[in-house]
Amino acid sequence: MELPDPAKGENPNPDTGVAFRAIVGADDVFVDESTRQRYGRSSGPAPTLPMAVVRPASTEQVQRIVDFARERGLALHPISRGCNWGYGDARAPTAGQVILDLSRMNRIVELNRRLGYVVIEAGVTQGQLWEHLQTHAPQLWMDSTGAGPDASLVGNALDRGFGHTRYGDHTLTACGMEIVLADGRVLNTGYGHYDDAVAHRVYRYGVGPSLDGLFAQSNVGIVTRIGLWLTPVPEAFSAFFFSSPDAEALEDLIERLAPLRMNGLLQSAIHIGNDLRLLSARTRYPWDRAAGRTPLPDELRRELCAEFRIDAWTGCGTVTGTPAIVRATVRAVRRALKPHRVVFINDRRIALAHRVAGALDRFGAGARLRQQLATVDPLYRLLKGEPTRESLYGTLWRVRGELPGPVTNPLDAHAGIMWSSPVLPMTGSDARRLLSLIEPIYARHGFEAMVTFTMISERAMIAVTNLYFDTRESDEAQRAAACYDELGQTLMDHGYVPYRVGPSGTDRLRRGSAVFWDVVAQLKQTLDPHGVISPGRYEPRP
Amino acid sequence: MELPDPAKGENPNPDTGVAFRAIVGADDVFVDESTRQRYGRSSGPAPTLPMAVVRPASTEQVQRIVDFARERGLALHPISRGCNWGYGDARAPTAGQVILDLSRMNRIVELNRRLGYVVIEAGVTQGQLWEHLQTHAPQLWMDSTGAGPDASLVGNALDRGFGHTRYGDHTLTACGMEIVLADGRVLNTGYGHYDDAVAHRVYRYGVGPSLDGLFAQSNVGIVTRIGLWLTPVPEAFSAFFFSSPDAEALEDLIERLAPLRMNGLLQSAIHIGNDLRLLSARTRYPWDRAAGRTPLPDELRRELCAEFRIDAWTGCGTVTGTPAIVRATVRAVRRALKPHRVVFINDRRIALAHRVAGALDRFGAGARLRQQLATVDPLYRLLKGEPTRESLYGTLWRVRGELPGPVTNPLDAHAGIMWSSPVLPMTGSDARRLLSLIEPIYARHGFEAMVTFTMISERAMIAVTNLYFDTRESDEAQRAAACYDELGQTLMDHGYVPYRVGPSGTDRLRRGSAVFWDVVAQLKQTLDPHGVISPGRYEPRP
Repeated sequence: MELPDPAKGENPNPDTGVAFRAIVGADDVFVDESTRQRYGRSSGPAPTLPMAVVRPASTEQVQRIVDFARERGLALHPISRGCNWGYGDARAPTAGQVILDLSRMNRIVELNRRLGYVVIEAGVTQGQLWEHLQTHAPQLWMDSTGAGPDASLVGNALDRGFGHTRYGDHTLTACGMEIVLADGRVLNTGYGHYDDAVAHRVYRYGVGPSLDGLFAQSNVGIVTRIGLWLTPVPEAFSAFFFSSPDAEALEDLIERLAPLRMNGLLQSAIHIGNDLRLLSARTRYPWDRAAGRTPLPDELRRELCAEFRIDAWTGCGTVTGTPAIVRATVRAVRRALKPHRVVFINDRRIALAHRVAGALDRFGAGARLRQQLATVDPLYRLLKGEPTRESLYGTLWRVRGELPGPVTNPLDAHAGIMWSSPVLPMTGSDARRLLSLIEPIYARHGFEAMVTFTMISERAMIAVTNLYFDTRESDEAQRAAACYDELGQTLMDHGYVPYRVGPSGTDRLRRGSAVFWDVVAQLKQTLDPHGVISPGRYEPRP
Repeated sequence: MELPDPAKGENPNPDTGVAFRAIVGADDVFVDESTRQRYGRSSGPAPTLPMAVVRPASTEQVQRIVDFARERGLALHPISRGCNWGYGDARAPTAGQVILDLSRMNRIVELNRRLGYVVIEAGVTQGQLWEHLQTHAPQLWMDSTGAGPDASLVGNALDRGFGHTRYGDHTLTACGMEIVLADGRVLNTGYGHYDDAVAHRVYRYGVGPSLDGLFAQSNVGIVTRIGLWLTPVPEAFSAFFFSSPDAEALEDLIERLAPLRMNGLLQSAIHIGNDLRLLSARTRYPWDRAAGRTPLPDELRRELCAEFRIDAWTGCGTVTGTPAIVRATVRAVRRALKPHRVVFINDRRIALAHRVAGALDRFGAGARLRQQLATVDPLYRLLKGEPTRESLYGTLWRVRGELPGPVTNPLDAHAGIMWSSPVLPMTGSDARRLLSLIEPIYARHGFEAMVTFTMISERAMIAVTNLYFDTRESDEAQRAAACYDELGQTLMDHGYVPYRVGPSGTDRLRRGSAVFWDVVAQLKQTLDPHGVISPGRYEPRP
């Protein structure tokens, strides 16, 4: 590997690469153009070229890198696996930062079967933990997002991501953080700063103020390790899928399910998606049939939905407990959703369907059932916490031309992704209002209003509205950026604040009272006075 | 009301009272000796005499008081109702602070029946909210601690207190804080800093870093208002009470219940108390029968337990859901606790017992059942979230002589109270180990090792070990202080860190890595550089 050439603007300080190599070894510092471009890619509006990429193998190496960066006035942008697609990817908020890639820090440090937790380093992936549990603790379930096996757990928890099981709110299941501060100190939260505190990984708050919240969606420290709770495999389990062909049914579905969520009968996240969202999981934009028109013409939308047997609204959730509790809860769900289509699926039914398909195959008639199983299987597994890649497929909706083989990273396929993710109270009227705000905006900019509503807690929903484009199509990318801005602006104007933003959504967060963000800036100034860590990340400018 | 006389040391600055009166009105500033002594009382080792007591009626008045205090170098110790018995009471950490009594700020600002929450000011009591809900929203349950109707909700949530229902972890049900900072600014957390954010009271994290944790068990701001989640009255409800006459049964009870808690079958806090703890709820120390000896002689302990029909271990929990789910869960609990005594009680059984007692009364035979009902009734109501005073009775265990009528404030009866409250993993062996650590210490200092274990979450328990004495008995009080110190020291030495401390437990928190408390001090310095708010509170000295 070459030393950086400052004349090319690759690196203003020629000994930076040398210093980083002295810390992490020669093979884990990258200053070459192609690596830097790869890390700087964006599924949003603009890539940002980093100065270098450094991959430490330990907390101690992170401390030394931070010390060096602080002394030299460098900025470090930590990533765990860089799969933050649609919310910033691996890229730094601004060009010229050093990407601190924590993917080598991928040790599963501890597994406690009895108390149901693991302690993991920042680089551990969903797939890695899944495999580990299959081998070492099949009695425990993890929770997965739809980002697939290569995405990180720590990064998602810090961005307050969510999955599908009873432990779907990832903020609530992280217990105890190890954090490298900008001055090189290592902070352990919860009870982690006491030697051998026996409750360190089972009690989140510690004693005295709780600091974990400071390090979520922020840039005041580099989280290198967390504890993560796992739930025991339930004695009995049933997934349920419900749907309605009526575009107006959303409000009713939410009103029927909300009481079951609020009284604790349903403990897992419930996801409800519209037809467009489900279409994107099954096929790409039908450019030919649409004769190049966007957004998707209504007639074509109806045709595609009929072909793929997709209803206006489709949702899923899960029930766990003893067999008797699951039976009783299934009855309650069935009763609540009475006017709507609802199907309950458990391991036995899945196995049966596979056997039936096998039998039908002998008569050449199993294809239809096999196709259905191919759709349901990955989702069913995801509902049980298994990371699957199928959810990523939707991001390719607007990608033109041949795909470069099976896609594990949407950026490899030039997928443009921008999510607007407002939080709303768990009421049907809020969901309807939100739809009525976003649909005309999508249409005006030539995009499809894909949306899922996730009942994330007992009284709140997160709506993830997807905006997909092809990053190579500059006109489309520009329209996407304009659409995203208008969505964000309009939603904020109506009180629907996002749960999470990407770089181009950050500045919009500065409105209303200035005190909150002023206080955040004061705390950042206190813990990182030189702006070493990820300058710009969740720092809305006035 | 007199102006303070600086010559008497009552108030170093004669215009302080004038200034406070100009802000809050003449009737809500107190500088007289007797009021100051009342607020300075301590159920722990030492009272601290405040300089004055000020009772603001609004956030704006709090801001003006803070501004004045900062300019004059005064310290303000905010209390909501001052019922923090055993953990500091109403008193300030050090003498000479001004008590900022928020009890006039007792408005229930908002009640949302649909989404199940209230927005309350800091002075709202448990009893007040209970009454309010009975009238305006009988379909919602609150959660109560055992501190009775006069205790505050906000103060308890900020100290991470807990109750008995599905919403027993009060940290998890507070949503959105209004905080007056030491420089007079008003900070709203969560989405509260956005105008009309529709999800403000249903989603706790907001966007960007979450700051709520900073204001729990700390002194970096004055919380004047919070949102508080309420749970819908369940369709069906059953309390269960279990017990064992075997002193060694604790480990088995915990091991049997832990899986039901960890897999989400039991969603409410489960409390398990020893015989001594239950005895204290029924009677006071039998000085005569003990012939003045302490701790309680074993033989007398057995006699009293027999008289009051108290087992070695007694516990309770609740089940909620549809009738069918409750039936199925009750079966699961019964199965889990099979070798032990377990009784399930619901509204129907309570009503029946009352009818039976009435019938028996006619034959003069209802007394025994009535007595049982008198014990079970308040606890049953507490398990449904109703604040009751009965739990306070235990604090009087060691109080000598006649009581001053019905006791609503243990301080009125000179009750000495010190809790050591370590957190432990939800395992039987940890509970046994903890008992084996504390019992000899209690005995050595002449006290009874009263203890409850609360399964507060899916994998952690909080052990509250009670140390009761009579504050008028100086020898006993000194022994209590020594016992408390040794308990705290020993527990920390073995990795059992408290979830919460009183003033005399604070300094012990500074051990292990210095980084955590150094960071807390830096954040305090940033937000309150002049040390206006509650200096000493949760500030362990090196």
